[in-house]
Amino acid sequence: MILKGQHVLSVKDFSLDLIHELFAVADNMRPYATRQKVTRVLEGAILGNMFFEPSTRTRVSFGCAFNLLGGEVRETTGLSSSALAKGESLYDTAQVLSGYSDIICMRHPDAGSVAEFAIGSRVPVINGGDGPNEHPTQALLDLFTIQKELSRQGRDIQELSLTMLGDLKHGRTVHSLCQLLSLYRGLKVQLVSPQALAMPTQYVDILENAGHQVVVSDKLDEGLPSANIIYQTRIQEERFATQAEANRYRGYFRLNKQVYSEHCQPNAVIMHPLPRDSRNDANELDNDLNLEPGLAIFRQTDNGVLVRMALFACILGVEDQLSKYERPVNWFPGLDPLRG
Amino acid sequence: MILKGQHVLSVKDFSLDLIHELFAVADNMRPYATRQKVTRVLEGAILGNMFFEPSTRTRVSFGCAFNLLGGEVRETTGLSSSALAKGESLYDTAQVLSGYSDIICMRHPDAGSVAEFAIGSRVPVINGGDGPNEHPTQALLDLFTIQKELSRQGRDIQELSLTMLGDLKHGRTVHSLCQLLSLYRGLKVQLVSPQALAMPTQYVDILENAGHQVVVSDKLDEGLPSANIIYQTRIQEERFATQAEANRYRGYFRLNKQVYSEHCQPNAVIMHPLPRDSRNDANELDNDLNLEPGLAIFRQTDNGVLVRMALFACILGVEDQLSKYERPVNWFPGLDPLRG
Amino acid sequence: MILKGQHVLSVKDFSLDLIHELFAVADNMRPYATRQKVTRVLEGAILGNMFFEPSTRTRVSFGCAFNLLGGEVRETTGLSSSALAKGESLYDTAQVLSGYSDIICMRHPDAGSVAEFAIGSRVPVINGGDGPNEHPTQALLDLFTIQKELSRQGRDIQELSLTMLGDLKHGRTVHSLCQLLSLYRGLKVQLVSPQALAMPTQYVDILENAGHQVVVSDKLDEGLPSANIIYQTRIQEERFATQAEANRYRGYFRLNKQVYSEHCQPNAVIMHPLPRDSRNDANELDNDLNLEPGLAIFRQTDNGVLVRMALFACILGVEDQLSKYERPVNWFPGLDPLRG
Repeated sequence: MILKGQHVLSVKDFSLDLIHELFAVADNMRPYATRQKVTRVLEGAILGNMFFEPSTRTRVSFGCAFNLLGGEVRETTGLSSSALAKGESLYDTAQVLSGYSDIICMRHPDAGSVAEFAIGSRVPVINGGDGPNEHPTQALLDLFTIQKELSRQGRDIQELSLTMLGDLKHGRTVHSLCQLLSLYRGLKVQLVSPQALAMPTQYVDILENAGHQVVVSDKLDEGLPSANIIYQTRIQEERFATQAEANRYRGYFRLNKQVYSEHCQPNAVIMHPLPRDSRNDANELDNDLNLEPGLAIFRQTDNGVLVRMALFACILGVEDQLSKYERPVNWFPGLDPLRG
Repeated sequence: MILKGQHVLSVKDFSLDLIHELFAVADNMRPYATRQKVTRVLEGAILGNMFFEPSTRTRVSFGCAFNLLGGEVRETTGLSSSALAKGESLYDTAQVLSGYSDIICMRHPDAGSVAEFAIGSRVPVINGGDGPNEHPTQALLDLFTIQKELSRQGRDIQELSLTMLGDLKHGRTVHSLCQLLSLYRGLKVQLVSPQALAMPTQYVDILENAGHQVVVSDKLDEGLPSANIIYQTRIQEERFATQAEANRYRGYFRLNKQVYSEHCQPNAVIMHPLPRDSRNDANELDNDLNLEPGLAIFRQTDNGVLVRMALFACILGVEDQLSKYERPVNWFPGLDPLRG
Repeated sequence: MILKGQHVLSVKDFSLDLIHELFAVADNMRPYATRQKVTRVLEGAILGNMFFEPSTRTRVSFGCAFNLLGGEVRETTGLSSSALAKGESLYDTAQVLSGYSDIICMRHPDAGSVAEFAIGSRVPVINGGDGPNEHPTQALLDLFTIQKELSRQGRDIQELSLTMLGDLKHGRTVHSLCQLLSLYRGLKVQLVSPQALAMPTQYVDILENAGHQVVVSDKLDEGLPSANIIYQTRIQEERFATQAEANRYRGYFRLNKQVYSEHCQPNAVIMHPLPRDSRNDANELDNDLNLEPGLAIFRQTDNGVLVRMALFACILGVEDQLSKYERPVNWFPGLDPLRG
């Protein structure tokens, strides 16, 4: 496959064909991720899981995905403890760390840092998030989830009517998702946010140039009825100039059982990149929706493991060897085999 | 076994039968922990070792126990770097992280947090310590050690005369141990502490209601002579209102060679949950006892690995498969095979 | 081999014979480190990678080396989160942690701390750096690199003409290297530094007592022409009394393409313990040298993996079993197989 030996730095590197190939591999990962079987295809391989910005969820998801393929994980978390703080260039850091691993996943607070790192790396690098710029594996797992959820509804991706909701200005996940959606034609996309947190024009343009039907609104009840998938986001408080400014939007658009019943299609799918802010005054996605069949947020995070496993397998060229290194699961699997 | 697929949240969940079963499995773990043999029974399984409060010793003990069974470990340390700091609920964190692992060990600074987490988890959760509340695996390893040490003396658990010493007010390990001891009848328990740091009444009641013979004292030399096992504790300085208040009890009850020789039975067993505070002005358990055969503190911590291995094996239902995945040790074992 | 079951605390423990034996084993590690083959010789063994002072590079190098032999790694990073902060002695920490692993690598900010730790450890301990004192594996990988680089030039170690450059006062790597070089006789060593950062007399004496021809200078252009190997160092700013004092020496001796062309032998080898400070005003080793064939700094860090693998294998007594646990690499190796 074309991913073999390649870096994954941006969603812009992905064609529709490549995505279909990748998602087919991700589907093959489900029996291993849900503990119906074990594969040890990467036994002996090492992932350098280099998180120069903390992110428990993403870091553990990558690490787990590599372990599920049988590989080992070496990690770092945080910037201060690293040689970068002593003036080492990303080029040097990459040269050194790439001597320690077969593949590297890197997160860093600065936009463009991972691409710069990749230049110095002697092994493939996956962008685990470079500040305000990109987080391509999140976008891929979001698209994968959209397809799976539509498919559960008996729908094709061409029938997608997606409402993105909340802080569309700062949320890099919705930006990257726009980019991926531009590979399709003729979808319906509603962008609902306070005007000050509207989707940047460049991404609206990307959607419109792809021939999608785009509706921009600042009213919750306008954006919800037509959606078969709702993508709610957190107010990215850390990206505002002041906390006071951020506080103005706390809890601005709340999705809860009442709103959902009143305005949404039956079983409309709810996605969220997580974490959701469950503090009382924020609460953009209420816990009273937790038992709704349409709430896909944990299927979505589970899908992240599948997509990351698929990326590792394709980049390292083992996607056709999974069953060769297969074994039965000999322990009691706590995971619900029906999840995802 | 009854533990299969279960959470371990509290010592209150343990019956005497369950403990006997668990300890029998722990005994079976000794050849693997002492490097006479290797077992790979959990190869392919993943432990989520989620320490939202730092604890090197406990974290590494759990991780090591899982590795000794052949499994992989994904970890986190500390609260700030986690999504919890962005307002994520424990329910959400659990939903997400349980998609990444086969079993989770969790430590968190808040009482009740681990039980709350377990509600959201799709895999079994072991309480690695929830603040001032419980630390059940410590209590289990303490009881296991008491049995082993009595057995080394040719004694049965019914012959136990236990003196708990020091900060009995704040020490959650002694509280949990009281709980476990209440499963027995007719033991001798001496509680020796400064009056201000006395064992809370509820735990004294638990012991007395179980029919144990309880003596409360604030004098070191009253509590020691009758004990065949002494359980010394550290003044939990971090639990006091002020450092000045804590300082009053620094070094209040010191156990050293002179006190030991003068007041204790020959070869009386000394336990301690560790860390012991070896600073000059604290020094509740002096280094001049390090070569005493009765000093069981490192056998005690070694036992923690056995008990944690047993918990993992029983919860994941592989306790009868250990030898099936067995191999010889092909490297030079540095560990003293006679320890423990 | 004599290393079996031993601690590695100081370069002073190494004889020339031992070094030759160790380096021969390190050579055998190359096919595994460069992903031509996999060995699982230490499958089931556990490294306790205890970094009580942060160091991403060294920590990951040790962890990777152990993983490359098939073993598992349990880690800690940083002092504050550890029991040491609650007054636990190094003896106790060692007793506890050595119950969790087959071998320990330890780094700690205090000189002598690792040796003190080793007294309490029941498994072999490798010094991963004890503050200003020693970092023996760095010295070993430096000497290994010197031999390999000379060999690439068709030279024997006896033909070495080494120029050490920069902060020779604070750099523990150059001190340890002097120690190792004292095992040889009749080498040429140039020591070039600002007078205030000169090599301490004791190390000059060590070199002279070994019969080496030592030249001390504070002029860059005097030290370079005769060298076939140049060992540049970073100004160790963190070891100065004040930042102002450190700033005086920032960028004092810069090695760049122009200096290299003008003053150095063709293809003179450039080494550096890394990290190099690539900030504009420091920049002791310019990026314009990155494509010079003589720039050995990344071959040097790659060699660190080989030497650490060799140490693990020899200490655990498996250096003759590597091929017995060998497998082909079944994934696409991103690493340049010609590196190193």
